[in-house]
Amino acid sequence: MNVIDLRSDTVTKPTASMRAAIAACEVGDDVIDVDPTCDRLERRTAELLGKEAAIFMPSGTMTNQVAVRIHCKPGDEFICEAGCHIYNYEQGAFAQLSGVVARTVEGPAGVLSASQLKGLIRPFNDHLVRTKLVCLENTHNRGAGKVQPYDHVEEICTWAHESGLRTHLDGARLFNAVAATGISAEQWSRHFDTVSVCFSKGLGAPVGSALAGPKEMIQEARRHRKLFGGGMRQCGIIAAGALYALEHHRARLVEDHANAQLLAEAIRQTEGISLSPKDVDTNIIIFAVEPALGSSAQFAAELKQQGVLSLPISGTQVRLVTHLDVTEALCRQAAKIIKQVAGELA
Amino acid sequence: MNVIDLRSDTVTKPTASMRAAIAACEVGDDVIDVDPTCDRLERRTAELLGKEAAIFMPSGTMTNQVAVRIHCKPGDEFICEAGCHIYNYEQGAFAQLSGVVARTVEGPAGVLSASQLKGLIRPFNDHLVRTKLVCLENTHNRGAGKVQPYDHVEEICTWAHESGLRTHLDGARLFNAVAATGISAEQWSRHFDTVSVCFSKGLGAPVGSALAGPKEMIQEARRHRKLFGGGMRQCGIIAAGALYALEHHRARLVEDHANAQLLAEAIRQTEGISLSPKDVDTNIIIFAVEPALGSSAQFAAELKQQGVLSLPISGTQVRLVTHLDVTEALCRQAAKIIKQVAGELA
Amino acid sequence: MNVIDLRSDTVTKPTASMRAAIAACEVGDDVIDVDPTCDRLERRTAELLGKEAAIFMPSGTMTNQVAVRIHCKPGDEFICEAGCHIYNYEQGAFAQLSGVVARTVEGPAGVLSASQLKGLIRPFNDHLVRTKLVCLENTHNRGAGKVQPYDHVEEICTWAHESGLRTHLDGARLFNAVAATGISAEQWSRHFDTVSVCFSKGLGAPVGSALAGPKEMIQEARRHRKLFGGGMRQCGIIAAGALYALEHHRARLVEDHANAQLLAEAIRQTEGISLSPKDVDTNIIIFAVEPALGSSAQFAAELKQQGVLSLPISGTQVRLVTHLDVTEALCRQAAKIIKQVAGELA
Amino acid sequence: MNVIDLRSDTVTKPTASMRAAIAACEVGDDVIDVDPTCDRLERRTAELLGKEAAIFMPSGTMTNQVAVRIHCKPGDEFICEAGCHIYNYEQGAFAQLSGVVARTVEGPAGVLSASQLKGLIRPFNDHLVRTKLVCLENTHNRGAGKVQPYDHVEEICTWAHESGLRTHLDGARLFNAVAATGISAEQWSRHFDTVSVCFSKGLGAPVGSALAGPKEMIQEARRHRKLFGGGMRQCGIIAAGALYALEHHRARLVEDHANAQLLAEAIRQTEGISLSPKDVDTNIIIFAVEPALGSSAQFAAELKQQGVLSLPISGTQVRLVTHLDVTEALCRQAAKIIKQVAGELA
Ligand SMILES: [Ca+2]
Ligand SMILES: [Ca+2]
Ligand SMILES: [Ca+2]
Ligand SMILES: [Ca+2]
Ligand SMILES: [Ca+2]
Ligand SMILES: [Ca+2]
Repeated sequence: MNVIDLRSDTVTKPTASMRAAIAACEVGDDVIDVDPTCDRLERRTAELLGKEAAIFMPSGTMTNQVAVRIHCKPGDEFICEAGCHIYNYEQGAFAQLSGVVARTVEGPAGVLSASQLKGLIRPFNDHLVRTKLVCLENTHNRGAGKVQPYDHVEEICTWAHESGLRTHLDGARLFNAVAATGISAEQWSRHFDTVSVCFSKGLGAPVGSALAGPKEMIQEARRHRKLFGGGMRQCGIIAAGALYALEHHRARLVEDHANAQLLAEAIRQTEGISLSPKDVDTNIIIFAVEPALGSSAQFAAELKQQGVLSLPISGTQVRLVTHLDVTEALCRQAAKIIKQVAGELA
Repeated sequence: MNVIDLRSDTVTKPTASMRAAIAACEVGDDVIDVDPTCDRLERRTAELLGKEAAIFMPSGTMTNQVAVRIHCKPGDEFICEAGCHIYNYEQGAFAQLSGVVARTVEGPAGVLSASQLKGLIRPFNDHLVRTKLVCLENTHNRGAGKVQPYDHVEEICTWAHESGLRTHLDGARLFNAVAATGISAEQWSRHFDTVSVCFSKGLGAPVGSALAGPKEMIQEARRHRKLFGGGMRQCGIIAAGALYALEHHRARLVEDHANAQLLAEAIRQTEGISLSPKDVDTNIIIFAVEPALGSSAQFAAELKQQGVLSLPISGTQVRLVTHLDVTEALCRQAAKIIKQVAGELA
Repeated sequence: MNVIDLRSDTVTKPTASMRAAIAACEVGDDVIDVDPTCDRLERRTAELLGKEAAIFMPSGTMTNQVAVRIHCKPGDEFICEAGCHIYNYEQGAFAQLSGVVARTVEGPAGVLSASQLKGLIRPFNDHLVRTKLVCLENTHNRGAGKVQPYDHVEEICTWAHESGLRTHLDGARLFNAVAATGISAEQWSRHFDTVSVCFSKGLGAPVGSALAGPKEMIQEARRHRKLFGGGMRQCGIIAAGALYALEHHRARLVEDHANAQLLAEAIRQTEGISLSPKDVDTNIIIFAVEPALGSSAQFAAELKQQGVLSLPISGTQVRLVTHLDVTEALCRQAAKIIKQVAGELA
Repeated sequence: MNVIDLRSDTVTKPTASMRAAIAACEVGDDVIDVDPTCDRLERRTAELLGKEAAIFMPSGTMTNQVAVRIHCKPGDEFICEAGCHIYNYEQGAFAQLSGVVARTVEGPAGVLSASQLKGLIRPFNDHLVRTKLVCLENTHNRGAGKVQPYDHVEEICTWAHESGLRTHLDGARLFNAVAATGISAEQWSRHFDTVSVCFSKGLGAPVGSALAGPKEMIQEARRHRKLFGGGMRQCGIIAAGALYALEHHRARLVEDHANAQLLAEAIRQTEGISLSPKDVDTNIIIFAVEPALGSSAQFAAELKQQGVLSLPISGTQVRLVTHLDVTEALCRQAAKIIKQVAGELA
């Protein structure tokens, strides 16, 4: 049986051309001086994001948490949406490793408005943490790949900077937001001091993430990367995959978005399951399973029986993610299987 | 001018009898072995709270944060109400010193319901922190001295324990809840693994707080207290004041509550200011100042001109706290001044 | 039986006059604004140490660890003598709470020389911590109350400052060094950015320590004190004892030193036990028990039988400390008992 | 000019065959479930080290610091040699990220003896950290690739385990110790609870390290790896290089050792420079430059002019490391250049 893996866009495997690029790449010792392929990746990433510099790391968790560490000292606080990745899915590293507190604000489908944040900055007072940073996530994973409205981003970040706060964008799927809106990565990034992007998600690279920002902050990030154990020697081997992904797989993200619409449409048409949130902006679909059909885990188990891998993300919700390794045809087949499973469980 | 200090119940000063008790107390080296007065205070506190043991510390911040540390390791999470003291007014020590993450839930006037918490326990998963603890605050400072409804406390703690979580009560003003409800301290405490109480607030002692709980946890607390620098030598000197307060000033807290009603009533009758929250359960009154009358800071400044000290706690809110050192007569006078100031500013 | 407690100078109890001063002291809420007695203590301490400001805390562990925190960020390093209090007897708070690394250097009886330190400053490099601080201890507890030679202190601190390092003096027993040398507290303190002193040791106060330094650093210390739970309300109650101790018990420390010589002389004359280290500079005596006489714990147990309390500090070493509550007569008696016990155990 | 890079064995670049293995490797999402190549590498590593399980990470800093974290909680202490990598070259992560204290003991060329450690375990006491772990490094980088004497390792680890301590081996260059002694990796590892090995040093892989130990500890390590940001998706791409290195480049380490002897012999014969330490056990040579010839930095600069890259590791010491990418012929050439430079500078 042909397995259709829709659990995450992280499951993408390197293509033959990407493997060729990896096999042929030039390398150096990036801890002792520099790996030339990694250096090219960092420069190219910085350029695309309109930043002075960028630094490559083994994961998005590391780029995000190093960013928090650049902006916040122990006893500082960052503001973020309550469902965001940095707060929820990185094992509380901000507190655990860096002594930083999160201030969470709930936004519909992960979308925050400036009006929710104004008033949250704490006065200087020995009882209180110091508010230092606003983190946004675009697209928002838990919000089903929701694109942050551009004007919200602009208003939030303008307010933040005027108020003396720093801003960080968790742009693990920023290129999906670019593909969905036509707003360039540089334009999105303009509003943030630092931006992290992932190469191993929709772009299809095997491993890696980058953090971009002003030269000085990236220099500081290098120190924190070392501390976290993210200094890698001949890292060109993986940077080559990331560079290939960056150059060849950005444009095609629109295909993943179109395929996500196929799945969303099928779910809309099916009794017993419903999109939650309703909108599918990019490549992530989350749907709720009505109790009558059983739990999300049961639904996912049935799908697996039929060759479709999905991810239950709460007792009632299932996530699907389209990506490089699932074609339109496979998505149509998955859509059919979803309808069929819902029918059987009803 | 006779200053009426309603900023906090922490401003209470030791009475003549309390000073006499302090001057006469027996002492010992509590770090090297034991201070007998401190030991008596600890035993008496444990008894009142129905716990095996208690430990004296210099502040409520220390008892609360040591409690978090007993229950949570780095990478663990506690659930609390979004306006509570532990999350907001202890400089994020849980994260800063202990690597622990806070999960905040908003409750009206600081009151949480079990239904809000069910479903928040995170599954075991390397992406996620481990949910370990629920913290409640009773009475709730930011909720204007709100008494947690007893059945809420019972339901939340029962669910927590059934779910394998620990529970901690920030009972800085627990004796106010006792005075307001007639439910004993022991009865309230029954639902919690650990309970902290403050002696320097409504009870009127100069300094100190205690943490009560099972013997083993309190033994562990001793170690954390040393770490935080809370080991004190002849601490009987302050424990004597706390012990005096505990024995002589619990019953009279009802007077503070009656005085708070006087103030509340005056505010209800006054245009331009309004109780926020509406209920005054114990000794704390929070009122909102309408924009037409200026900011809360301006209102407080006017009150100060007339000899009434208050605490602006947000741009629009002012807090008043009744206590041992303000008699009914002074509260009546303060009520009159508040009305008068509101009238002048209108 | 009259117990002679030589375990530590921390066991000193408040005198009648000190108790009177405590009972009569003026107080205020030191967290909300200021406690006038605490304020007087802080000003007087700053004056004696020749510093701009000082801050009162519940323990020497807190003043020392707050000092480390003022000078060092996570990933910074301080240099100290391997047997010092900050490294050994404060539960590693520098690492545990502040993420700071200790670089230990062994000095005879706790005395360091500048030549040992030169060359230890780490170059800037992402592999390495940043060397930021030198901590000295004077007198040195584990070095048997050893007074640091003044020229060593001067040379070390001059080198440190010229090298861009900060310096902190753990002066828990600084006034013993003053009494022993005639060099003023101000003169000793001149070489250090921050100085901590204890009131509850030889000075005989029930509780407390102060940290002195430049105004800005002490302002920062206030924030860290709050974080550690060291903010105390009407702390005048204990500050009064400390202030009394500071004014009335400094001059008499020479008596403790004379009494220590009595004990030292007795030990020198006794077979089977010997001073270790040889010199007794101030009020601390450490002696080694020869294996033939049993362990240090056994020796201490025998002494206790005869009414003399001592502290075994290693398998073979026993510590004695003279102080305010043991008169010359009692020390002579203790000396006799020590000789006698050694004789019996031989 | 043909550059001979002797700065470190980390500079090794993947060979053509290794690149082919990388390009052809099977991959999977190692965060979501498992990467099959990484899984093979982990099993093979565990097997070679005689452990139940192993886990792959991006760096030796991460494997070492995760090991510290498995064995020690905040407020715990590990004992190590004063010049070791974990204490000196990992930015104090043990303190900075994990709140752990290091107790350093100096050993000649990094070699510790059990007699130095016995007596260092701290008693249970609230003043003290808890001694939990002994870390050894074999071969010892700063000791010039010194092989720890097997009987020392055995005696230290036996004592540690009998005393309730855990043991960790920083085996970044363990396979060099194996090649030098004929004692198997399994035999060395038997004495340690956990062992880390590096693939990117003498073995010649581009990136990566593994931590091996009991199944349960490695499961826990997985959680800490995620926290540090070391979870990598299709990590087979780099694991393939590590696996190739492990299978094909262990046996040839003896060649590096022979080449190191060539260099050592040249240094012995040369005036003005001398081996420091004297012994060259494996592939690392450290030599001291006499002041008459200038600083180590000047010596290294001259070598660089002649095409030999070396690493000044202190004001007077230069390090050379032989490895996969420098043949015997190149080492002979380097030896000649070293003699020549010493002659010119004399
Ligand atoms: Ca991928
Ligand atoms: Ca938090
Ligand atoms: Ca009070
Ligand atoms: Ca005392
Ligand atoms: Ca250390
Ligand atoms: Ca390599």
